[in-house]
Amino acid sequence: MPDKVLDDISHRRYNPLTDSWLLVSPHRTKRPWQGQQEAAVERELPEYDPKCYLCPGNSRAAGDRNPQYEKTFAFVNDYSAVKEQQPDYENNPSSDDPESWLLQAQGVKGVCYVLTFSPKHHLTLADLPGKDILPIVEHWTRIYANHLSAASPLAKLAGELDLSLGPQDSPVPKDEYRYMQIFENKGAAMGCSNPHPHCQVWTTSTLPEEPGKELRQMAKYRSSHGGRHLLQDYVELELKKGERVVWHNDTFAVVCPWWAIWPFEVVIIARSHLRSLVDLSAAQRLHLAEAIQEVARRYDNLFGTSFPYSSGLHQAPLAGSEEEVESSYLHMHFYPPLLRSATVRKFLVGYELMAEPQRDITPEQAAARLRDCGGPLYRGKVA
Amino acid sequence: MPDKVLDDISHRRYNPLTDSWLLVSPHRTKRPWQGQQEAAVERELPEYDPKCYLCPGNSRAAGDRNPQYEKTFAFVNDYSAVKEQQPDYENNPSSDDPESWLLQAQGVKGVCYVLTFSPKHHLTLADLPGKDILPIVEHWTRIYANHLSAASPLAKLAGELDLSLGPQDSPVPKDEYRYMQIFENKGAAMGCSNPHPHCQVWTTSTLPEEPGKELRQMAKYRSSHGGRHLLQDYVELELKKGERVVWHNDTFAVVCPWWAIWPFEVVIIARSHLRSLVDLSAAQRLHLAEAIQEVARRYDNLFGTSFPYSSGLHQAPLAGSEEEVESSYLHMHFYPPLLRSATVRKFLVGYELMAEPQRDITPEQAAARLRDCGGPLYRGKVA
Ligand SMILES: O=P(O)(O)O[C@H]1O[C@H](CO)[C@@H](O)[C@H](O)[C@H]1O
Ligand SMILES: O=P(O)(O)O[C@H]1O[C@H](CO)[C@@H](O)[C@H](O)[C@H]1O
Repeated sequence: MPDKVLDDISHRRYNPLTDSWLLVSPHRTKRPWQGQQEAAVERELPEYDPKCYLCPGNSRAAGDRNPQYEKTFAFVNDYSAVKEQQPDYENNPSSDDPESWLLQAQGVKGVCYVLTFSPKHHLTLADLPGKDILPIVEHWTRIYANHLSAASPLAKLAGELDLSLGPQDSPVPKDEYRYMQIFENKGAAMGCSNPHPHCQVWTTSTLPEEPGKELRQMAKYRSSHGGRHLLQDYVELELKKGERVVWHNDTFAVVCPWWAIWPFEVVIIARSHLRSLVDLSAAQRLHLAEAIQEVARRYDNLFGTSFPYSSGLHQAPLAGSEEEVESSYLHMHFYPPLLRSATVRKFLVGYELMAEPQRDITPEQAAARLRDCGGPLYRGKVA
Repeated sequence: MPDKVLDDISHRRYNPLTDSWLLVSPHRTKRPWQGQQEAAVERELPEYDPKCYLCPGNSRAAGDRNPQYEKTFAFVNDYSAVKEQQPDYENNPSSDDPESWLLQAQGVKGVCYVLTFSPKHHLTLADLPGKDILPIVEHWTRIYANHLSAASPLAKLAGELDLSLGPQDSPVPKDEYRYMQIFENKGAAMGCSNPHPHCQVWTTSTLPEEPGKELRQMAKYRSSHGGRHLLQDYVELELKKGERVVWHNDTFAVVCPWWAIWPFEVVIIARSHLRSLVDLSAAQRLHLAEAIQEVARRYDNLFGTSFPYSSGLHQAPLAGSEEEVESSYLHMHFYPPLLRSATVRKFLVGYELMAEPQRDITPEQAAARLRDCGGPLYRGKVA
């Protein structure tokens, strides 16, 4: 039981993963909405779109032609945010020269991949049963294994993986990188410019801010709690309490976290310590695929719409110290913007950007709604 | 001159105000955009809208009627995110009980005001000359002064202010609060649900995340740089270099900061140490009004549209230690989402939320564009 009083008073909650706070205003859900509405028109999409640069057999911006792939397909983004080849750059701040500290920059190299989820243009993760999400989890595992630093404590496992690279489907890196961020932007509201189901995989020579903060917090917890893991203690606590749990299987739990910012934010957390995708057995990969299917289907059922979100996997860095790798704990965030219906979203704007994130509905209320949405996909099977 | 190489390579820049990094991908501006477009239709608004809850003489949600105000008008939001009256709440994390640390909450009390900028429904800050923005700056100053803790080192100045409260226009607080966040959400894209020009003022019993981070960074800099101020050193450096400066007068400079996340983000920075609005002389208040007018007009001129943004003032806390108040440094952030035109915005989504903020156009390029937009307002005078 949460303190019942929190259902009625404005309060802040602490996010131990990022060491930050957010403002919760449960009474504010009564506010009427007169502002911008999202476009709710659900377009009927064809199974194959001759103009889509992700459909099998079509050609892309830079002129390459996609193969007639049958499950997933990865390629280097024609408009990558980071590149493999560029001049080295670093300015080292020195204390004699305030300018060098006030105007600091570091060069970043890397590769940005696009990875399709299916050859079919009109499907989403909500339409795919767990067994058809499995090839996606396998592809993530291969592409991650393929980019692990030779010095990583995980490199040996990666070498012994029971998955083999298909031709063309996992480009081989030319360099060693520090981190790999796998993420999906789904829906126009989340800046996605092509409905063909896909995610992105950005590898960089630097450790990005968010996983960096999480890693530091997890390592701190581990060293001050006799080797226990922050997220393992957290997921156990949530499974015991139940009120923020949406669903679970033997390997993963789906939780609306205590510190959720987005109205229906959830996190898929491993129930015991898994550092990264290469730690998963074949059965556990299917468990992850099933957890993802549960989230995607429940989201769509919630408002009877193809639910927009950004999702992302956090796991061990590609290159990192023993301590960093051992402190890493596999989880997957989902940040969806919708608040009240297919057309009314939460805006994280003025106060949120200038002062502190703010939410109305509590994570406990959100979890209860998502627990109730577990039936078959509202729109039935796609033809 | 910045390192010219930064115009062509992916790199990270450091934000000394928040101690965080962002990814810059200058070459990525060539990317075509096929995704969601913002609604660009500029509605012709009436000078008075009988249905607007902010127009003079109209009644609001809770039934109160607005006075026939002539300049600005403030009232307590009918749907406040924080309230003055609620039960006290705090759970104190203890090290014996991991649960108390993993599920931390604090009660937050406060008041949320709405403050109109003008009785005229169809105006924006871009339409108002500096002398008509001055009453807004004055109202901010009064409402801030009115909420200062009696123990604040600024309380004496507040008592001697050359501005007097009009009847009804600055509600008197019943309690002492820790921080006041003044912010504006402008435009439907920034979650604003009413075009009548207005901002919001949220006071809270807690110090929010963003000003808290900035304060800690500014205090650290001050103590390690013999009492110098981070933002004063920064603004001097920018004025010397020039390439990121958009405009300045004697008291303020408008800069696209080195660490800008949003494509055309700017910050108005005091050129010498001002802790908060109550430090400003009458002439300096007009200088701030003029700086705001320059930003708003240039934004609208950039793409020939009423430019959406969120803006916010950061200044000394209402209640704070001597060190916190002395380390505070008045500045105003503007975060606008548009990237390439009135209808194409930057989405801060998957990679940005999961890994690290990312931008395409450099702050130097953005500043050059904004310097060139200084002419008269593109749409002329509103009738
Ligand atoms: O208070 P408003 O303008 O109705 O609401 C807007 O600003 C608030 C403060 O940034 C946000 O919490 C809301 O999501 C947004 O829609
Ligand atoms: O790469 P895409 O899908 O074209 O672009 C989308 O995702 C990127 C990564 O989150 C963002 O930087 C872009 O702003 C967004 O539109």
